[in-house]
Formats: sequence, C-alpha cells, structure tokens
Amino acid sequence: MENFTFKNETRIIFGKGTEHCAGDEIKKITDRVLIHYGKSSIKESGLYERVIHSLTQAGVTFMELGGVEPNPRLDLVQKGIKLCRENKIKFILGIGGGSVIDSAKAIAVGVPYSGDVWDFYCGKAVPVESLGVGTILTIPAAGSESSPSSVITNMDGQLKRGLTNDLLHPVFSILNPELTYTLPAWQTACGAADIMAHIMERYFTNTYSVELTDRLCEATMKTVIENVPRCLSTPDDYNSRAEIMWAGTVAHNDLLGTGRNGDWASHQIEHEISGIYDVAHGAGLAVVFPAWMKYVYKSNIPRFVQFASRVWNVEIDFQNQERTAYEGILRLESFFSSIGLPIRLAGMSIGDDRIGEMADKATGNGKWTAGNFVKLSRDDIAAILRSAV
Amino acid sequence: MENFTFKNETRIIFGKGTEHCAGDEIKKITDRVLIHYGKSSIKESGLYERVIHSLTQAGVTFMELGGVEPNPRLDLVQKGIKLCRENKIKFILGIGGGSVIDSAKAIAVGVPYSGDVWDFYCGKAVPVESLGVGTILTIPAAGSESSPSSVITNMDGQLKRGLTNDLLHPVFSILNPELTYTLPAWQTACGAADIMAHIMERYFTNTYSVELTDRLCEATMKTVIENVPRCLSTPDDYNSRAEIMWAGTVAHNDLLGTGRNGDWASHQIEHEISGIYDVAHGAGLAVVFPAWMKYVYKSNIPRFVQFASRVWNVEIDFQNQERTAYEGILRLESFFSSIGLPIRLAGMSIGDDRIGEMADKATGNGKWTAGNFVKLSRDDIAAILRSAV
Repeated sequence: MENFTFKNETRIIFGKGTEHCAGDEIKKITDRVLIHYGKSSIKESGLYERVIHSLTQAGVTFMELGGVEPNPRLDLVQKGIKLCRENKIKFILGIGGGSVIDSAKAIAVGVPYSGDVWDFYCGKAVPVESLGVGTILTIPAAGSESSPSSVITNMDGQLKRGLTNDLLHPVFSILNPELTYTLPAWQTACGAADIMAHIMERYFTNTYSVELTDRLCEATMKTVIENVPRCLSTPDDYNSRAEIMWAGTVAHNDLLGTGRNGDWASHQIEHEISGIYDVAHGAGLAVVFPAWMKYVYKSNIPRFVQFASRVWNVEIDFQNQERTAYEGILRLESFFSSIGLPIRLAGMSIGDDRIGEMADKATGNGKWTAGNFVKLSRDDIAAILRSAV
Repeated sequence: MENFTFKNETRIIFGKGTEHCAGDEIKKITDRVLIHYGKSSIKESGLYERVIHSLTQAGVTFMELGGVEPNPRLDLVQKGIKLCRENKIKFILGIGGGSVIDSAKAIAVGVPYSGDVWDFYCGKAVPVESLGVGTILTIPAAGSESSPSSVITNMDGQLKRGLTNDLLHPVFSILNPELTYTLPAWQTACGAADIMAHIMERYFTNTYSVELTDRLCEATMKTVIENVPRCLSTPDDYNSRAEIMWAGTVAHNDLLGTGRNGDWASHQIEHEISGIYDVAHGAGLAVVFPAWMKYVYKSNIPRFVQFASRVWNVEIDFQNQERTAYEGILRLESFFSSIGLPIRLAGMSIGDDRIGEMADKATGNGKWTAGNFVKLSRDDIAAILRSAV
C-alpha cells in the first residue's frame, strides 16, 4: 500500500425532495448566487421552478447562465467569469450533470484569477483561490459533485483538458434520485459506463496489497452492474436510481483510490475522441475500456482474474487463467452492449481516419506516455484505437 | 434507502513515517498545543520523541497531559480543560488509541463551555463550539480518528456515555501502520472486534435497498477477517497492519451507515459492562455481539443469511435458511475465539450478579429500549447478558 492523504469536504445531501434545501444551504454562505445549467430540461421537469422557489424563500437573489453543452466549452466559462465579476457574485450553483458542474467549477476558479482560466487546464498555472460551488445533480455519471476535478473543452484546437485541485470540491451537493427518473436510457447507460470507468481506472493498478480498496471497488462495481438494468427497465424505481446515484459519487470521491496508483489511460484516450467528435464521454469509455483491457491484460493476469472472478462471478479456470482473465473483459463488453452502449468506434460513426491525430494529442506527439498500469506510447494508443474500429 | 447527509472533514494522512508531519500540520493552525496521551508506551517506542522533534522543528510549543486510561475518565478530561484554559491553548494533539482521542475531544469541546463538560455526555446540553483536535493513531479500533464521537466514563456512578456531534471530527489524523507493530496481540484482537462491531452495528438494519452500503460493509468486514490473523502471526507485516488501520477508519467514518438506520444495541450493552468492570471495549463486544445475534436473528433471517453467505462464505442451505443464518453467527464467534478473544462473560471473569443493574442502566430502568434492528427491553437485555454468562 502506498502512503496517501484523503479528505473530502463536500457535504452530501441525499434523498427525496432534497432540492428544497438549496436556498437554505446557500443562505448559510451568501445571499447572491449564479445559477448555471444546461439546456431546457430543468425547466421542463419543474426542477428550475422548485430551485427558484427555494432560493426566494431563503432570501437569496440570483443571476443565471444556461446553455452548458455536453463536453462543456471554455467560451461559456469565460462568459460566466465575466458575469460573476461584473455582478460581484461569490457563489455558483450548478444544476445538471457533470458538464454543468465542471463548467461551474471552472467559472469559480477563474473569477479570482487575473489570467485566462485555460491556463489552469493546460498546466500553465495552479489555482490558489476559488469561489464556492454548490450542485444539484441530475445525471449520475461524472462524480464531479464531490470530486476535486473539472474537464473543459477548448474548441480552439479541439482540446479537452482536466484540472484537479482541492479547491474544486463543491461546498455541498444535493443528490435526489427522483430527479433522474426522466433521464433517457442513453444517458443512464452512458452515466453507468462513466461510473464503472472511474472505478476501473483505480482498480487496475500495479500497487500490491490494497485489499480494502480492491474490495470497496468491487462492491461498487457490482452495485452498478446489478442496478443499471433495473433503472432501464423501470425508470422510476427509486431504490435502483438511488444506488446508482450514490455509487456515482462514491466511485469518484477518491476513497476507492486510496493507497494505490490508478491508471487513467482510458480516460485520456477517450478525451481525445470526445474532444474531436463531441460524443458522449460514457459512450466513448464503453468503447475504449474493453479495447484497452484486451491490449494490456497479459501484463498482469492475476489482476484481471480477480476482476473476472470477483466482479463478474466468472468461474476460474485454474489451468488457464489467461482465459478467465479474458472472459472478464468479454463480460464487461457484453454488459456495456446489453445496456445499449457502443463497443466499437463504428457504433459512434467514427472511422479510422483521425486515429493518428488522437494518439498524437494523447501523448504530446509522442513526448509522453499515457497510463500507469501499462505505460502506453503513441503507437500503443493508435493500436488500441485501431483495435476498436 | 433513507435520506441522509454525509460529510467528513477529517484530513487523513496515512502511511510510513507520517508522524513527522505533525508539527507542520499544527503550524498551519496554531503555534501552541496540548499533547495528550496515555501511559508510557509512546515514550518507550520513541514516538513521543519523534513528535516532539517534529513540533520543535515547526516552531510549535507545547504543554502535555498524559495518563489517559482505557475507558477514559471524566476527571482527567476536567484537568485538561483547566490546563487549556489557564494556558490559553487552542489545539489538542491526541497521541494514542480511541481512549486518548476521545479524551482529547472531550477536552476540546469542554474548554469553550461554561458548564460541566459532562452535560454534553448525559444529554443536558449540546456543544456549539470546540477547540481543534489532531490525532496520531496508535491503535486501530475505535475509529475516533475520523468519527464525530467521543465516549467518556464518569466514575461517579460508573457511567460510560457517548457524545456525537460534527464539531468532534478531528482536523487531521495521522495513521502510520508501523506504529502498530508493537501492539500486544490482545490489543490487536480487541481492536479488530471493535472495528467489526462498528460495521455490524450498521449492517444489521431493517432498511431495505441499501445495496451499495451493504456491499461496502461486507468488503470492509472481509478485509478485517482476512488481515487480523496475519497481523497476529507477523506483527510487523506492514501491509496487513495497513489494511486493518484503514479499515478501522472506514468502518466508522459513517460512509458505511449512509442511507440506513443502524442498530447500536450491542454497543449500548457493552458500555454498561465496561462501565462497571473496566474491561476492554473490544473484548466486551466480542462477548455481546454473538449473544445479541443469537437472540435476534429469527426476526430477519434473510439479512443473517446474507451475512453468513457474503461475509463468511457459508454455503446457503436453501431448504433451511435459518440454519445458514445461525452458521454465520457461529463463524463470527469462532473468529473472535480464534484471535484470542473471550466469547463469554466468564472469559472476562464476570459473573451474573450485576446483570440486572446493567440492563437497568442500558434502558434507564426500563424507561426506554435499546437498538433499532430489534427494540430491546430491559428484560431482553438481561436475557442476552444471561445467555452470555
């Protein structure tokens, strides 16, 4: 086990009707807020109205900035920063999924910074202060509701880049599983793939003796695998929605990464895909992860046997453990397929014509490698992408 | 699943050599501290000296108060409060196990309060402010290093009472598994029973559809069950010590209780035992828990079958699930026995002469019940204790 530090300051407010707490939670901190959201869905569902009512009741005034797109854009972040500065706003309430929350975090960290907020995302600067962020989550997926991370896309260069800093932990996050009843099946499935990916990125490690976190990862993956089909067949099943929503947070609050080095190559590769093609992150991960696994599993057969046995209940073939390891990968692939996700690039209408470009971007034109479980070169990444065509 | 809120502010600093951070961590907050500890063991092990060195290097001055006993006493807490007030100390560093940390928390919460700190423990008052507490943990057991709880014994009446309040989360906790190499086998085993008990108190719930937390509980219990024997056979096995130390924290930071009602009757009953007989809390729990289980398991056979199957790998007898449920209890009992713990009161030299008194105290002379899984009357508790003689 490796040394680690662990702290997660986000206050989780979980359960039925919890969006009604938003006003009171913000009032503890400030009486003026920017509400930040995506398209019209929060208005159609009535959530917008309930939140406004809660803010008004608590005596919190607000400005608003909607229009966040999936793979949230730098230009809207910059607009939000300007709005907050001009109106002396000190707190941002993100209402939506990971894209909205990531965008809210980017605005929050950009407001007190004199330079361009993109500096933080391309590694030119490190944030030292941030406005506070609260969230009302509507899509269990990204884990951004309690993570210290944010991913933003700069359309100038189609670059999708992440920032991780403890300042980015939301102050509070409101998680009401009822808000996910109306999620389309596609978004439910993409979210599940994202959650699974966050766990698998941590699970596939070469750090030995991380038994507790192994078992916590396995517990969370099994919960996702069992409950996603229930959410798809019965979209308003509260308990299944609640399991997925809580699993999405636990998957990415970094408890499951304590004491070990994660991999994160698949995320890096997927960021290049969705940076260029603007596909759903979860769908991209459903394509990349099995392809990555097939490329690397022979480097650590025991770990893939553990994955197959403990997570997928594959009977171990003790005489041919490689076969068991491979069977676990096939089960994951078949799970993604069963919930309606693509498992090949073709399933997202992506061909092989820009594979070289993606491999270049993921490795700084071959200057660095991706991942820790196996360090992948530019050529490795191109090979993985080709195998996923 | 029930609605819940979850937040844990304690910063965990985990791993080899981490006690050297103590000075720098405190210096971020203050430059004067009370160090609080038990008997001579931290001096014999060299830990005391390393901590003093770290404080001195960081420019932190200190006063000290040693002498905390297992089942920490109110009178020493009161002495600590006086010392902090007289010397205007604003931060307490507890170095030791749960007793030391609980005592440090009691001092911290008592200093700013004008009345007697015992008011908080007997429910006469609720704390509204507290000094900060940091900890260096030497015994994985109580989970106090990141819990919001403290348990203190008032020798006047042999009352052992707990306080839970968010103010009681330590600011930071330093967990170095190396510090546990020299723990006697007895303390290692008692600690394991305490950790198991913290999980089982949450696991035995009548809340349905708490699958993720069920699985996280099972994951943590399995880790404890597998690693304690390794710690006993090879006391300086870093990885096993690390698994137990981290499991002890995870078991009681309340993640495993999210979305469900725990039971806590066994803790309440055990507090009456150790309040009177001053036995080790973990040993008392090893006696009480199986006795409690045998008394209540028929009220929810499926939950005990799940415990038997998932935690103890008992093959399910589908035609006679009651037998499977009971087998799980026997496996727990045999586990406690195998690591050297008593499973009967006689094993702690306790007879049946004060059972009525303990049942009275646990229920306010029959005015209230104990536990949630099954609500236990005074007579139920007396019956459980008699069955454990």
